[in-house]
Amino acid sequence: MKTFKIAIAGGGSTYTPGIAKALMLKRDEFPVREIYLYDINDERQNRVAHITQKVVHEFDPAVKVVATTNPEEAFTGADFIFAQLRVGGNSMREQDEKIPFRNGIVGQETCGPGGMAYGMRTIGPMIELCDFAEIYAPQAWIINYSNPAAIVAEALRKTRPDARILNICDMPIGMMLRMAEILGCEKDEIEVDYFGLNHFGWFTDVYVRGESKLAELREYMSEHGLVTPEQSMDLQHSDADWIKAHRNVAAMLKLFPEYLPSSYLQYYLIPQTVVEQTDASYTRANRVMDNRERNLFDSIAHLEETGEFKEGFNVGVHGTFIVDVAMSLAFDRRERFLLIVENNGAIPNLPDDAMVEIPAYVTSRGPEPVRLEPIGLFYKGLIEQQLASEKLLVEAALEGSYQKAIQAFALNKTFPSSEVAKRVLDELIEVNKEFWPKLG
Amino acid sequence: MKTFKIAIAGGGSTYTPGIAKALMLKRDEFPVREIYLYDINDERQNRVAHITQKVVHEFDPAVKVVATTNPEEAFTGADFIFAQLRVGGNSMREQDEKIPFRNGIVGQETCGPGGMAYGMRTIGPMIELCDFAEIYAPQAWIINYSNPAAIVAEALRKTRPDARILNICDMPIGMMLRMAEILGCEKDEIEVDYFGLNHFGWFTDVYVRGESKLAELREYMSEHGLVTPEQSMDLQHSDADWIKAHRNVAAMLKLFPEYLPSSYLQYYLIPQTVVEQTDASYTRANRVMDNRERNLFDSIAHLEETGEFKEGFNVGVHGTFIVDVAMSLAFDRRERFLLIVENNGAIPNLPDDAMVEIPAYVTSRGPEPVRLEPIGLFYKGLIEQQLASEKLLVEAALEGSYQKAIQAFALNKTFPSSEVAKRVLDELIEVNKEFWPKLG
Amino acid sequence: MKTFKIAIAGGGSTYTPGIAKALMLKRDEFPVREIYLYDINDERQNRVAHITQKVVHEFDPAVKVVATTNPEEAFTGADFIFAQLRVGGNSMREQDEKIPFRNGIVGQETCGPGGMAYGMRTIGPMIELCDFAEIYAPQAWIINYSNPAAIVAEALRKTRPDARILNICDMPIGMMLRMAEILGCEKDEIEVDYFGLNHFGWFTDVYVRGESKLAELREYMSEHGLVTPEQSMDLQHSDADWIKAHRNVAAMLKLFPEYLPSSYLQYYLIPQTVVEQTDASYTRANRVMDNRERNLFDSIAHLEETGEFKEGFNVGVHGTFIVDVAMSLAFDRRERFLLIVENNGAIPNLPDDAMVEIPAYVTSRGPEPVRLEPIGLFYKGLIEQQLASEKLLVEAALEGSYQKAIQAFALNKTFPSSEVAKRVLDELIEVNKEFWPKLG
Amino acid sequence: MKTFKIAIAGGGSTYTPGIAKALMLKRDEFPVREIYLYDINDERQNRVAHITQKVVHEFDPAVKVVATTNPEEAFTGADFIFAQLRVGGNSMREQDEKIPFRNGIVGQETCGPGGMAYGMRTIGPMIELCDFAEIYAPQAWIINYSNPAAIVAEALRKTRPDARILNICDMPIGMMLRMAEILGCEKDEIEVDYFGLNHFGWFTDVYVRGESKLAELREYMSEHGLVTPEQSMDLQHSDADWIKAHRNVAAMLKLFPEYLPSSYLQYYLIPQTVVEQTDASYTRANRVMDNRERNLFDSIAHLEETGEFKEGFNVGVHGTFIVDVAMSLAFDRRERFLLIVENNGAIPNLPDDAMVEIPAYVTSRGPEPVRLEPIGLFYKGLIEQQLASEKLLVEAALEGSYQKAIQAFALNKTFPSSEVAKRVLDELIEVNKEFWPKLG
Repeated sequence: MKTFKIAIAGGGSTYTPGIAKALMLKRDEFPVREIYLYDINDERQNRVAHITQKVVHEFDPAVKVVATTNPEEAFTGADFIFAQLRVGGNSMREQDEKIPFRNGIVGQETCGPGGMAYGMRTIGPMIELCDFAEIYAPQAWIINYSNPAAIVAEALRKTRPDARILNICDMPIGMMLRMAEILGCEKDEIEVDYFGLNHFGWFTDVYVRGESKLAELREYMSEHGLVTPEQSMDLQHSDADWIKAHRNVAAMLKLFPEYLPSSYLQYYLIPQTVVEQTDASYTRANRVMDNRERNLFDSIAHLEETGEFKEGFNVGVHGTFIVDVAMSLAFDRRERFLLIVENNGAIPNLPDDAMVEIPAYVTSRGPEPVRLEPIGLFYKGLIEQQLASEKLLVEAALEGSYQKAIQAFALNKTFPSSEVAKRVLDELIEVNKEFWPKLG
Repeated sequence: MKTFKIAIAGGGSTYTPGIAKALMLKRDEFPVREIYLYDINDERQNRVAHITQKVVHEFDPAVKVVATTNPEEAFTGADFIFAQLRVGGNSMREQDEKIPFRNGIVGQETCGPGGMAYGMRTIGPMIELCDFAEIYAPQAWIINYSNPAAIVAEALRKTRPDARILNICDMPIGMMLRMAEILGCEKDEIEVDYFGLNHFGWFTDVYVRGESKLAELREYMSEHGLVTPEQSMDLQHSDADWIKAHRNVAAMLKLFPEYLPSSYLQYYLIPQTVVEQTDASYTRANRVMDNRERNLFDSIAHLEETGEFKEGFNVGVHGTFIVDVAMSLAFDRRERFLLIVENNGAIPNLPDDAMVEIPAYVTSRGPEPVRLEPIGLFYKGLIEQQLASEKLLVEAALEGSYQKAIQAFALNKTFPSSEVAKRVLDELIEVNKEFWPKLG
Repeated sequence: MKTFKIAIAGGGSTYTPGIAKALMLKRDEFPVREIYLYDINDERQNRVAHITQKVVHEFDPAVKVVATTNPEEAFTGADFIFAQLRVGGNSMREQDEKIPFRNGIVGQETCGPGGMAYGMRTIGPMIELCDFAEIYAPQAWIINYSNPAAIVAEALRKTRPDARILNICDMPIGMMLRMAEILGCEKDEIEVDYFGLNHFGWFTDVYVRGESKLAELREYMSEHGLVTPEQSMDLQHSDADWIKAHRNVAAMLKLFPEYLPSSYLQYYLIPQTVVEQTDASYTRANRVMDNRERNLFDSIAHLEETGEFKEGFNVGVHGTFIVDVAMSLAFDRRERFLLIVENNGAIPNLPDDAMVEIPAYVTSRGPEPVRLEPIGLFYKGLIEQQLASEKLLVEAALEGSYQKAIQAFALNKTFPSSEVAKRVLDELIEVNKEFWPKLG
Repeated sequence: MKTFKIAIAGGGSTYTPGIAKALMLKRDEFPVREIYLYDINDERQNRVAHITQKVVHEFDPAVKVVATTNPEEAFTGADFIFAQLRVGGNSMREQDEKIPFRNGIVGQETCGPGGMAYGMRTIGPMIELCDFAEIYAPQAWIINYSNPAAIVAEALRKTRPDARILNICDMPIGMMLRMAEILGCEKDEIEVDYFGLNHFGWFTDVYVRGESKLAELREYMSEHGLVTPEQSMDLQHSDADWIKAHRNVAAMLKLFPEYLPSSYLQYYLIPQTVVEQTDASYTRANRVMDNRERNLFDSIAHLEETGEFKEGFNVGVHGTFIVDVAMSLAFDRRERFLLIVENNGAIPNLPDDAMVEIPAYVTSRGPEPVRLEPIGLFYKGLIEQQLASEKLLVEAALEGSYQKAIQAFALNKTFPSSEVAKRVLDELIEVNKEFWPKLG
């Protein structure tokens, strides 16, 4: 039986041990022989590699775990490259969040000005990663979690159209998990219809064994949002920020009851509420650094000091989803996932060159997306504006155009006015000097 | 030589005497034998008719001027129907402006929530007018000034696709007049390229005798906006509100220097600035009532009391433009105007069923629009959202759908948040009870 | 476990016993409790029902087999309606074939003028069938084999857009069976990519366990066409006509080696060769009457006379395919088939309202088609012309328009000239008087 | 007043003296100071230049007429370049016509296989001409008559999208002239609506002073085609071939009475009739060589021998049309002509990248095409196939692809079968060896 080499780009991420464990949990069906971690931050990656190796070897000591800053070593011979870059780290994420909030605007990792700032930082390194893959592992599939996924996907569509990359996001899976809890069934019994851009979409129906549960979910979620009867979630999603986000789904459904919105739509539809709910001096980045990151590095320190292994991380849907996608690619399983793919008529009344998030069957040759019916005016209006914003942001980055950057910002529905958009853009340019392409 | 019957729907409007005078000024080329005024407000129309007859008879006492509330009498045998309804009058316009402003949102006659409220009131009466025309004057062309033109045009496209109606707006002509002053030439020497929705468009070039003046205008207008070297404008446009609006063009051009924006784009691109500049307790409706309307009715009173005629109104581009359009229709002149027409590919990357404002040559069989190049992402993003808003508003009116109304409002770029959109919508529903279709 | 009622419209078809047997072969997974045959030819259906009941009862005497000419009885409570109408029977098919051949033009059951004649006869009865289904079995799925499938599918799309109908064709399955023989694998190991209209399409790739076999098949088929190493085919497909058809695939591949063509494309790409190969006095209709039909009715006569049962028919892919589709619908299996569905962007550079034949996953709510890449110019040029021909034929039938009928014929690539098209059309009108709508 | 330099590429053409005379006839409005003839055939061009100079100097001896084979001399400083290349001359045209006819297929200069052969020869030289213009006369407009115009236009769209070229054809003007004779009015009183590809289009209406004459023309032309009450045509169009062509319009209208077809559609709609009407041993090329060409060179010989000037050529619509187009460009006249332009939505249901022939207003910055309504299925079906044929032919030439060439030929409606298409293609390859790109 074929065995696999997995490379993880962004090896120093707090998610790395969880992904490694997810791989190990499937090792009977999907035998991994080597996991290579690749990062530009050597010191941090080495520490994460330590605990990653520990968790892997608890399952199978024969699996090789290697950390390297050498792309040739990391990627040569890889069957899959899992990408999870965070360019600028959590400290820049903190800026992405706080600068907008100080201007009365939503500050968020992937949505609005924060997402655009993060996108500007990430486009270059992701193009570089595709080029490494083409040189060192031309047969490998890159499965990409790196955010902001919508912007990254568009940038690679435009610059590396032939890259063997699948852009994925665990948000819909996370929501499906909660829906399953609400409906009292298993996540794997749920099948969904969904359309949109990444972090900008709607569930148009949810089926359990072929039967629609839309009405039932609409009723529950209009009252409780995504807050499940029992709040027994994986660690990543259980904190106060997520409770708020999940409650805001109820507020959106009350305004727009037709479909079930992605929780991220709160940043675009009810941004003032989000601003009011947020402590601008202690944002999500702070919470992540003080919790998920600290927990992991406490674990690592404990391991280093005592040789004793406490997990300090969890697998979650984040870990299992990327492994499921890899397995469908590896074994031509034609499993149905929500993926970010080029539209090309799949949503007939959106532009062909949009990167849309829709159902697709994953074969060994890549995704086979389904074609949907034309979408309603409300969704089209929102999506066209957001799409233009994302495309302009990518063009601004690639062409170094200040003019396109301000257009991208002004179009973004998180902003109440183009003048504020310009003010926030100018502040973000200032703090991102070492990361962004120069805009003129 | 053929002589013409003109019917003016909304005969009680303050614009009626100016239009009548504009007709008289062209009587050598375009011989009008009868002007019928039609309105549902008998008393007001009779007073306006009095002065209208006076001004007409100063030119030619043989021209018949008749005021009537009977559509059969007004429209039978008409060659042209000039439509200028204002459903709800200036008192409802005051509500359209003040309710949004009280919520911190732009309140304007044709743009944003005010425009949508006005649209909801106007759709029914405009459909009725088309039906009168079909019954009593099936060969007549309706030339429509009734606002909000974008919404009216979409509603008639959807419900009366075969109506012989031309939707026009004098805003671009007004701007061209100012550009001519800036460039030191005559308005008729100017030819423009332009695209957009009504009150939501851009001049992409301006030519004088075939030569582009875009760069020159961009430079001037980035500093001064549309404020001309000499402020020698027609009455309608000369007041303080317009000075602000014309200065705001400079602010928009500084942010987005590519094309010359319609001055109405201020409500969508820099709404907060507009809100700050406005006294919410004394809005445009107040100014119109206290000036244009009072001046006219003072004149009428003076005429009634003394028999002496003082104009108290002006012709302006408003009056001459509608007559120019009628003449191009009447005599197959193929003159080139900006008109509001069904897109059908004219702007290839906008939906076919959009009502767009673009150049068209006017023949005796109607407009022959030109086809433009695909528009840029920024413009497409803005227009698609606005278009969806306008289309949803029309569907809300026709179907009586509250759900579509809230979607229309939430999409409108004048709103910073869907929650505010709902609040303003609910207030507007309350005060428009006697005018709007019931929303459920 | 749920049991099923199946109605077969066109119960007197020679295919009925084979379909019934196919159902019986799957009875463990798909328990059928009743099979109702519906036809307007009572006498013929009764004879077919006799042998059908025999074959069913050999498997399970508890399954009820009923023949009726009463639609209410046939369809009420049905879970699935299998449709296989042949309006006009084989005697009209003979005309469809012989009239064109006498004019030097391809005469064929589903392609060219013969197919259009047959379509004209079939549209009305298929609309009637949809209406029966809506009245008597609103939850049932109609799975339609009735030819000409392309024209039937378009007519129902246009007139009964909400009908729960799946249009299928066994031609691709038949070709896949032969490809499997050529490749030395099982049919179920093959997965294909395919696009086109029905009987007008191309296999763009063929995979065995995820690996492309296109090059291998292209090489083999350029020499041998679809004639397999061993000619061990099911009865339906083994005769001399099919040998010729399968050899003509090689001729087409030599001219156009990019993709593997449907064997039916011979009628459009090399019609003169087909005409030369055909004995215009003894066409396919004669062969079917003298073989498949005679064999069956000989069997029935033997059964009637002796009580002894000899099959005289075969199941073939025809029988198994329709049962597979029904099972995927019944049990939400999401199996992947080639189906005839509304395009709606699936092939981005074909019109949205085309009925295309493409892969689709069949759920309990109907097909979930995949979206393909834009197709090449050659294919688009051929398909657009054929599509316009089919759409005009349907409009001709629905509107009774002679003008559209002649346009449909003139566009069809089987004709070398519009004048011949008119001649053949006029002859077909003459002999189809009792079946066609009147054209004026 | 500005004076103009005109360069004529293909200076040795028999049309050159007529065009020069057409320029002279307009010299009051359009003062030409220099006419440069450019050709690669020095000897022939010098002889044509001789008589051209003679005709020019009869009007104005101050106008310089220069013949040169040096592109720098010919084009530097030119305001307009009139292009009328005939690559391969009339001897290759003879091949284009005779090879297809020998195979029972229409042989024609611009349509069917002959047109495709001619296109293959012309693409390269036309690209070269655009490059000369860009180097030596970057401000000049090229006004192109070189045939086959549809293929040339597509090739330049694809390879030189920024070339300042207007592709024109005098066929519609020629037909309008005949319509004027039929209607008893002047050509300039006629305005037409028209759509299609070049030599593949339809008049959808014809107006005289704004009034539709479609019904009247349809009635006359169904009987007489384009044969006018008095056969008083310009020389070019008066011979027996044209009589046949003009009569065939009646045959087409009887089959398809909706619109008035271009006379060239006979080659696609009734090709067998055309083949039967033609003497394959003495084709149009022979007639042109024996008449128009001989007449001109007889005149030239007479002039050379005696110094005496007899015209031996005529101006015709060919000469006046190109001058009218040049004047509309020169003076920003916005005159309305039928031109071959990129579709870009003008015909909404044809591809954006089609080169279509439609009305356009000609400004000093080029054409401003109008947008039409969606076209009917019959026309769309025909055009899509023809368009794909033309595009594939261009790709075949640019890529040297035999595969695309055979696809282009097989799609062309002049062929009854792909096998014949291949046969004719192979013969054409053989005789065009020195002209065509090599196909592999």
